[in-house]
Amino acid sequence: MPEIRKDPVFGRWVIIASERGRRPNEFRGEVSPENPRNCPFCPGHEDETPPPVYTLYADGGGGAKGGRKGPDWRLRVVLNKYPALIAEGRGESVPDGMYDRMDGMGCHEVVIETPLHNRQLEDMPVPAIADIFKTFILRVNEIKKDPQIKYVMIFKNSGRNAGASLAHPHSQLIAMPMAPIRVVQEIDGAEAYRAENGDCVFCDILRQEIEHKKRVVGENDNFLAITPYASRFSFETWILPKKHASHFEGMDLHFAGDLAAIVKSTIGKLRVSMEDLSYNLIVHTMPVQDPEVEHYHWHIEIMPKLSLMAGFEWGTGFYINTVAPEDAAEMLNSGKKYKL
Amino acid sequence: MPEIRKDPVFGRWVIIASERGRRPNEFRGEVSPENPRNCPFCPGHEDETPPPVYTLYADGGGGAKGGRKGPDWRLRVVLNKYPALIAEGRGESVPDGMYDRMDGMGCHEVVIETPLHNRQLEDMPVPAIADIFKTFILRVNEIKKDPQIKYVMIFKNSGRNAGASLAHPHSQLIAMPMAPIRVVQEIDGAEAYRAENGDCVFCDILRQEIEHKKRVVGENDNFLAITPYASRFSFETWILPKKHASHFEGMDLHFAGDLAAIVKSTIGKLRVSMEDLSYNLIVHTMPVQDPEVEHYHWHIEIMPKLSLMAGFEWGTGFYINTVAPEDAAEMLNSGKKYKL
Repeated sequence: MPEIRKDPVFGRWVIIASERGRRPNEFRGEVSPENPRNCPFCPGHEDETPPPVYTLYADGGGGAKGGRKGPDWRLRVVLNKYPALIAEGRGESVPDGMYDRMDGMGCHEVVIETPLHNRQLEDMPVPAIADIFKTFILRVNEIKKDPQIKYVMIFKNSGRNAGASLAHPHSQLIAMPMAPIRVVQEIDGAEAYRAENGDCVFCDILRQEIEHKKRVVGENDNFLAITPYASRFSFETWILPKKHASHFEGMDLHFAGDLAAIVKSTIGKLRVSMEDLSYNLIVHTMPVQDPEVEHYHWHIEIMPKLSLMAGFEWGTGFYINTVAPEDAAEMLNSGKKYKL
Repeated sequence: MPEIRKDPVFGRWVIIASERGRRPNEFRGEVSPENPRNCPFCPGHEDETPPPVYTLYADGGGGAKGGRKGPDWRLRVVLNKYPALIAEGRGESVPDGMYDRMDGMGCHEVVIETPLHNRQLEDMPVPAIADIFKTFILRVNEIKKDPQIKYVMIFKNSGRNAGASLAHPHSQLIAMPMAPIRVVQEIDGAEAYRAENGDCVFCDILRQEIEHKKRVVGENDNFLAITPYASRFSFETWILPKKHASHFEGMDLHFAGDLAAIVKSTIGKLRVSMEDLSYNLIVHTMPVQDPEVEHYHWHIEIMPKLSLMAGFEWGTGFYINTVAPEDAAEMLNSGKKYKL
């Protein structure tokens, strides 16, 4: 069973999950991208994943657990076969000498976004991308019914440099019994900003970036995409809802089309400007049991991985970025290729 | 000129350094590891780096700036040709709309550890490794004479997965006009631990780990090497001085031999257990202008890079480690090979 351990200096939690070391890795040659015969996420291989917790069918049907079997689906949510956390723990902290640990209580789901092994997210039609975001919302609202679950991290690793182990398009949800330290720091930072400046920091960023334009890479009625002022990574991009809201999972499903459209165009632009694009997409949102607040604003961060994180960044939390965000925005908007 | 920008949410600083994007990368094929003809760090290529700020000669001579020219050196310190920070800025924060930035004031030095292109650190004799650590100490004590310099980060990236761009063994010092956020968080965490528990958290870790033994991978009179309880990475290893001290650069040079010996044996063990080892080595120490304190204890963290940091870790600051530190210690001590 996975175990959660606490670092006594930082208060940072670490999941020790030996089982996950055994998962297959397409990029190590265990599954070939050209010949996805052994891909556990492809149609016809439904028995190689744990049973689905949610399925959408090709003919428009679908919904919760169970349902029809067979390969006629267009999106599936399954439990991760090599989970970082599982539902069996109790989420109680116990001392271990001078240290603390707890059972790895939570859950780990995989959203298989399409039956097509080589179809990238940005190449899907907008309604299919909207279905992925609607699925995230439905799953989080289901998972958070367990009051022990404090946070649900929604993320997508695409490409080898981003840490993905399988090429077949998928994203993941990890539910956990505490709010992670980086989330807490972000919310605390936003709260301090509001105490000093009187408004939500993300609402202020929206206003300033719409006015200045030079870091905008996409906009529609409900969302703005920017290369943020203090980008840690070359071509880092954030997508912000224009309307203030703390909880992603509280989003009205009618907005999913606009969200899907801006995600599609933003990743599409990244793909044009960058050869061999790898990226992490992360939904930043409030802990699920917390109320709406004035100071925190959910958003999506997309971090292309051009270079690997090196010692300096690890030691300092201080990033070196070799492409100014204004230059990145200009290249993305003009379709220029970035040469490493 | 590099620019330092502040993220308005986290208070995290980012260096925007467009020049660094132009540096050569051996791992992209611009310099071949088998035929290091074009390596700017090899003897005979002294003119391809900026002039040295410190040199040790093969015959035992050496010291500060200037000195003899020619290829008969055994260690050189040069300014980085593609610096993240340079000495010309003024280190003053100026507003930029709702944001803050400053000139990238500081310096960036490279320690070329050996004239031999393919000699890894752990294969060098102990006195040669001791010279590297003595050089770090001398350089930090020189650099910190400028009162604008608040922190000097000392680190080594070895191997492609650790973000190194050149294979020739080298390490780096980056001096900067503020203490980075991760350093501040670590020192604050250690201070909170001492307030609650009465002693330095690292002194407590030393006592507990020496007693429990199961996470110890090396020990001599003055240093202990362990796989820490809440290891973020598989085979993460820390080296701690047994005697409490906050500042690495305050270390008595007589301890350099013991430090070199434990670094050599620890990296040697990592090399045996792991195929194609890449790692980051980082010196964790106090800001250079701060006094010694009871709650903070300098140490070295070595982070092998088996897998890449993925979206979950980025979003949460919450790590998933697939090798328990007790298992890692057992494998390192027995010389077992780890199979990915």
